[in-house]
Amino acid sequence: MKLDLLTKLRETNPVVLNAANFVTVQDVANGLNALGASPIMSKEIAEAEEMVQMASSLAINLGTLTKLQIEQINRLMQLAVRYQKPIILDPVAVGAVEYRLDTANNLLANFPVSIIRGNVGEIAALGGFDWNAKGIDAGTGDENVDQITQETAKKFHCVVIASGATDTISDGQKTAHIYNGTPLFQAHVGSGDMLSSIVAAFAAICPDSFEAAQTATLVFSASGELLAQEHTEVGPGTFSMYLMDYLAKISISQIENVAKFD
Amino acid sequence: MKLDLLTKLRETNPVVLNAANFVTVQDVANGLNALGASPIMSKEIAEAEEMVQMASSLAINLGTLTKLQIEQINRLMQLAVRYQKPIILDPVAVGAVEYRLDTANNLLANFPVSIIRGNVGEIAALGGFDWNAKGIDAGTGDENVDQITQETAKKFHCVVIASGATDTISDGQKTAHIYNGTPLFQAHVGSGDMLSSIVAAFAAICPDSFEAAQTATLVFSASGELLAQEHTEVGPGTFSMYLMDYLAKISISQIENVAKFD
Amino acid sequence: MKLDLLTKLRETNPVVLNAANFVTVQDVANGLNALGASPIMSKEIAEAEEMVQMASSLAINLGTLTKLQIEQINRLMQLAVRYQKPIILDPVAVGAVEYRLDTANNLLANFPVSIIRGNVGEIAALGGFDWNAKGIDAGTGDENVDQITQETAKKFHCVVIASGATDTISDGQKTAHIYNGTPLFQAHVGSGDMLSSIVAAFAAICPDSFEAAQTATLVFSASGELLAQEHTEVGPGTFSMYLMDYLAKISISQIENVAKFD
Repeated sequence: MKLDLLTKLRETNPVVLNAANFVTVQDVANGLNALGASPIMSKEIAEAEEMVQMASSLAINLGTLTKLQIEQINRLMQLAVRYQKPIILDPVAVGAVEYRLDTANNLLANFPVSIIRGNVGEIAALGGFDWNAKGIDAGTGDENVDQITQETAKKFHCVVIASGATDTISDGQKTAHIYNGTPLFQAHVGSGDMLSSIVAAFAAICPDSFEAAQTATLVFSASGELLAQEHTEVGPGTFSMYLMDYLAKISISQIENVAKFD
Repeated sequence: MKLDLLTKLRETNPVVLNAANFVTVQDVANGLNALGASPIMSKEIAEAEEMVQMASSLAINLGTLTKLQIEQINRLMQLAVRYQKPIILDPVAVGAVEYRLDTANNLLANFPVSIIRGNVGEIAALGGFDWNAKGIDAGTGDENVDQITQETAKKFHCVVIASGATDTISDGQKTAHIYNGTPLFQAHVGSGDMLSSIVAAFAAICPDSFEAAQTATLVFSASGELLAQEHTEVGPGTFSMYLMDYLAKISISQIENVAKFD
Repeated sequence: MKLDLLTKLRETNPVVLNAANFVTVQDVANGLNALGASPIMSKEIAEAEEMVQMASSLAINLGTLTKLQIEQINRLMQLAVRYQKPIILDPVAVGAVEYRLDTANNLLANFPVSIIRGNVGEIAALGGFDWNAKGIDAGTGDENVDQITQETAKKFHCVVIASGATDTISDGQKTAHIYNGTPLFQAHVGSGDMLSSIVAAFAAICPDSFEAAQTATLVFSASGELLAQEHTEVGPGTFSMYLMDYLAKISISQIENVAKFD
């Protein structure tokens, strides 16, 4: 685990370009900003090339897709390949909606993605596993999460993060786990989208996607866990505000003190 | 009042599909999630049929309409009729903007709506009453709110909720009132939109629209009132965060303790 | 400094029409509402004329531009001229993105703007000064901020606010400064956009753009400073919530107690 990446991130403030969804975009921007990255959002193809050139990584979120956005996302990904910027994909609701799954599969067939981050239901759908997703929620299934994550990573030649009570990370060969977190993450709608963009921020400063995925996930999960320990009264609303505070102030030694991973 | 609907909601986590407005969408999603429902948002016609099939109810918000969205909303409502999912309509700003009023009237002429939820200015405009609305605010008028609510319900053959210091609910025959609440609801822009989607969550699990409307309104108003009692220092910002906490934790007995309705 | 404008604003609740960006729109609406103005947002040309007639001022934010929005913004500005409503422009990211700079320059060439509000990097770009902006952040440069602000104001025959640790305000002749504030403003993505719309709220009730700009900036900066003094533990998340509370409750005498300007 390369926790000194957090210091590097805060020193270099990488620009993360987000094709964001309108439900969680404010949280995503503020989460990146709090941690020390520089968020920028765009919806217009005409500025795509400038945006990609300026950015250090690209976070693509399929949360509230329109056809117009799919066009824009295709263009952004094409440019990210040209300018060699890592792409992070959050395949929101592909476990529940065929249209989203088709869109994600098309993007993945046409462009190399560095890291996919989703809940288990979404990762299972991409990997072609049987799983019972429910709307934007992970749902339940009998398959082995390690296997789902690993096979999906193999299928798309990238790193996959399957978020949950335990976060599972695989590059198709090795598989790692982060055991930190708090159930409050699930109680706030923007948590997953924030993590995806934070993964993009780490990918911007770390060429090893597996390390970027691990570190980002640990930093995010440990921030929430520490918050929940120190503010035992928080519910989903106050949690979401304190989370920004903790992303801004958490130190490497604080993370090391609570870190549980393998 | 069927307060055990809250238990049922939390046990079944109904999926509420939202045609949301971009100003308050994050609050709406988080409010539904905090209470125990499963929010999903969509802007794309191509996924409309899947979305409606997956959802247990439909919340249509006219807050930041575009022509493209009106097309999508028409399609969603058409599908909701086909798949027999209750439709809840929030006619934002129809009291102040003719274009919004025309849009709402067209939708109401073409599709059966289960429940309309707005402020008195909006309900008065739909009912054809004289009222002096101001932008998104309720404004003032001399008409009797009970009569406005009842007549508007009769006109559209549905249940109408006119929100305010007192919430008035009518199905055209019987009329009920909820006296709970706090002025802080008005100080936060997303309050009304959150209530409309929470009404949709209750409609998803209760076929009687009048009961769903009453229970949703009481749960929401009592949550805010209890919050304001227990945190006397809150202003509009901290209120909006604590509101999520209270929606998540409020119990039936806490609601019964403060409930004032007839 | 005309601080009694705050009382006037709270008594008259002016309607501020916002062409908002989807990243910060919720904060902008809530900030206006907390302060005592009445926010309304619109994305549809078909309702533009009604909206402009109803509004007392217009806040144009270039934060997440699409071509469709540029069309709508052109129409809104045309109507604002016809109905003599002051226009406030927030040129988000024009310092970093040519497409945004071209768009802003076109708007400024075609329509008279009362006040431009941006960070120094954005104002420098509009004025044609050399400056090293970074994404949505101000960046750094060697030029004199007073000169940049004054020259840009002269160039566009309007009042310019260059936000930063010190806020610089000029109408091309006289130049004023506000020294209040807190670094936490920079830690929250929506701060600048909120200020721009709050400037529009003051412009709605004060025909002197320079006075409106000064007063709005002082009220906003002093609210943040007072908050940071009284809640020393806040980070970017809790700051953003308390900021709404302070905008709602701050009094003229509290502002006078901390005010530092010339």
